Amino acid sequence: MILSEFDLILSGGQILTLNEQMAVIAEGAVCVDQGKIIFVGATSEVPPGWSFRKRVNLAGKIVMPTFFNSHNHAAMSIFRGLGNDLSLNDWLNHFIWPAERRNISPDTVYLGTMISAMEMIRSGSSIFADMYFFEEDVARACEEIGMRVILGEGILDFPTPNKPSPAEVMNHTRILFDQFRNHPLVSVAVAAHSPYTCSPDIIRLAAELSEELDIPANIHLAESHTEIRTMRERYGKTPTRYLYDLGFLSPRAIAHHGIYLDSEDMDLIMETHTSIATIPNSNMKLGSGICPVSELQKRGINVCLGTDGPASNNNQSMVRDLQQLARIQKVAHNNPTILTATEVIRMATINGAKAYRMNEVLGSVETGKQADLMIINPDQPHWYPRYDTFTTIAYSMQSEDVETVIVNGRIIMENRRFTQIDEEKFLRLIRKLKLKH
Amino acid sequence: MILSEFDLILSGGQILTLNEQMAVIAEGAVCVDQGKIIFVGATSEVPPGWSFRKRVNLAGKIVMPTFFNSHNHAAMSIFRGLGNDLSLNDWLNHFIWPAERRNISPDTVYLGTMISAMEMIRSGSSIFADMYFFEEDVARACEEIGMRVILGEGILDFPTPNKPSPAEVMNHTRILFDQFRNHPLVSVAVAAHSPYTCSPDIIRLAAELSEELDIPANIHLAESHTEIRTMRERYGKTPTRYLYDLGFLSPRAIAHHGIYLDSEDMDLIMETHTSIATIPNSNMKLGSGICPVSELQKRGINVCLGTDGPASNNNQSMVRDLQQLARIQKVAHNNPTILTATEVIRMATINGAKAYRMNEVLGSVETGKQADLMIINPDQPHWYPRYDTFTTIAYSMQSEDVETVIVNGRIIMENRRFTQIDEEKFLRLIRKLKLKH
Repeated sequence: MILSEFDLILSGGQILTLNEQMAVIAEGAVCVDQGKIIFVGATSEVPPGWSFRKRVNLAGKIVMPTFFNSHNHAAMSIFRGLGNDLSLNDWLNHFIWPAERRNISPDTVYLGTMISAMEMIRSGSSIFADMYFFEEDVARACEEIGMRVILGEGILDFPTPNKPSPAEVMNHTRILFDQFRNHPLVSVAVAAHSPYTCSPDIIRLAAELSEELDIPANIHLAESHTEIRTMRERYGKTPTRYLYDLGFLSPRAIAHHGIYLDSEDMDLIMETHTSIATIPNSNMKLGSGICPVSELQKRGINVCLGTDGPASNNNQSMVRDLQQLARIQKVAHNNPTILTATEVIRMATINGAKAYRMNEVLGSVETGKQADLMIINPDQPHWYPRYDTFTTIAYSMQSEDVETVIVNGRIIMENRRFTQIDEEKFLRLIRKLKLKH
Repeated sequence: MILSEFDLILSGGQILTLNEQMAVIAEGAVCVDQGKIIFVGATSEVPPGWSFRKRVNLAGKIVMPTFFNSHNHAAMSIFRGLGNDLSLNDWLNHFIWPAERRNISPDTVYLGTMISAMEMIRSGSSIFADMYFFEEDVARACEEIGMRVILGEGILDFPTPNKPSPAEVMNHTRILFDQFRNHPLVSVAVAAHSPYTCSPDIIRLAAELSEELDIPANIHLAESHTEIRTMRERYGKTPTRYLYDLGFLSPRAIAHHGIYLDSEDMDLIMETHTSIATIPNSNMKLGSGICPVSELQKRGINVCLGTDGPASNNNQSMVRDLQQLARIQKVAHNNPTILTATEVIRMATINGAKAYRMNEVLGSVETGKQADLMIINPDQPHWYPRYDTFTTIAYSMQSEDVETVIVNGRIIMENRRFTQIDEEKFLRLIRKLKLKH
């Protein structure tokens, strides 16, 4: 018998594969080599000739895919809690925008991203789609901590802290794309800010760039009444129709928020195979409204889930957002039967991967996929009894139940301790951070 | 100088007093003796002659009053996750009620309460108002773990698992009242289940019992459309009007849920000085609706907060409910300025004490009050930066940030470990629990 030595085996626990059948393996093993899953199945069926450099005993534990955070402005953790319980306009005009103008630099973006990355990993996320400035420094933090990221350098009609014009941002996106081509953790998307901050020319150029490079195209869409009114006044149409007419909507496009969508808007989204990233906690805290998730679902539109940045959500846990998503949809429809536990868990995992066209490699525990896994410790009062693990995740789990996180086959958090970075160093830096007023 | 030796000093941290002025002491101390707070102030001002049997160093920590959970059915943790994503009727008729008939006994109530008590303490609650059956066994669990409880033996028109008739439940309430008179942790309330399960005679007798013993009177109120319709059909009035006409509403009454309240209902609640316990997470998950908290607030009605039982909320953390309360009110009104961080924190603490007429002894950190305190560890990514501690608690804090809980001057959880019970023993018992089908 030829012995083969591989990187890692996790064995003896419950495996939630999140494959098409939502198969659950009661007493299972996951084998990993060179970043990829090479076996998923009953522990007893691991090929006898295989040996492993590292073995993790899952007795009493649960393994599932990590969460896919489909929308974030991670570096905004440096503004977490700066002005709250305010109207959106007061908050942006008097707190967030002045603070950004005065404080955003490569170093603050790096530090802010690192703080958010720590929080995301501690609650089971291994990847996030970012939209901000100095995205090369977002990548720097993620590479260091060992997390995946989809960089999105924000395109607006006006100068950003990083670049003087939208054309330069688009050029920068192209440079980032070249720089991170074939990177194991980092990829790049076009990130047009919104219909109300991007002129028709910019929207058209952003769509073209996304098509040319064949990369995702992010945009905020239909987040507030004000946006709907503004677009009606300027162009006589809804923001969704505006994007459609300019050719922005496509299977590469991910529209974030998607709260104020009329029936025709939803048809346009469906027709173009655009995905919607829903962001429930942020939409609630800002009093924005409720995304019509079940109507989108009925049309077969792919709905994924994101946290938004820490200035508007204040908490980067996908566990909390997926639990919120179930609850807000049920109360919005006065109907506890809509949006089941398994549906919200798919929105927090595989649907994100679908939106960013990474579902061949991420979003479920299946042979051939990248090994992005979390180990959950359910031996705690709030997990008992456990009639159904999906239900417990959707309604009872706490973020800190995530014990270990593996990204691309590498353990980046083990028993709640980061393996790649010195946590204390970054907490020290953020404690010392003085924002300019 | 005469030296005085006292029980306990916590010193060198931030103290959130939650007194009327919401005073915050940056570098403070709390001194405790014989269960009571004997000093709150700057560490430098602790009287020099005092010495303490136990000293806790708060460097970098936060002390605040524990949470007051105003509504629970704690023992229902044994049904956590049993049937979900179902209509309320299907869920009750096919899952919860049959399961209760077959499984509720003194032992399951004791075990279920203990599991919930562990979860509540781990998220900072030191007291809950319970409504269930075999309340003497609820008391048994709470005494053992060192937590406070307000017992409420459920009164319904039909036999309960504990007693064959409402008259016997009321007699039992009287016996419990005598048994726990002057108990340091346990008190007793009348617990009429709801307008639609209690006939006019029962409501009247329950109100009289509450008045005679001068104890709180709990009732579920206006939780669903069905309830409103049922009461309209039976009595031609709203459930609130029904309770008012029967003399149930009073400064001793706490109405739980209070979702479907019209303007006249709210006037009756205001006029009688009844409190409303709002239960946001449960109301969302069951698709019930949204309590009009800001309208109640405007009328000056005392609004407190509860989790509901673990079968309908699935999570016993007051941290999560207070954060939910802020978010659901903002989105329900499309207005991020309503219900501020300090308001929701008061609803989760002092307002509960007010509802149960315990605000002279609980709900804030003030000299003369009982020492029910929690120590929070904010040295974690999601707490940074910290512009304002109340905001961070209302939007970013996680339940597990609660490090130590003190009830009646006794440390019942220290660095996340229970001091009074063997946690593993109860997890073992709940793992082995087999429900009857």
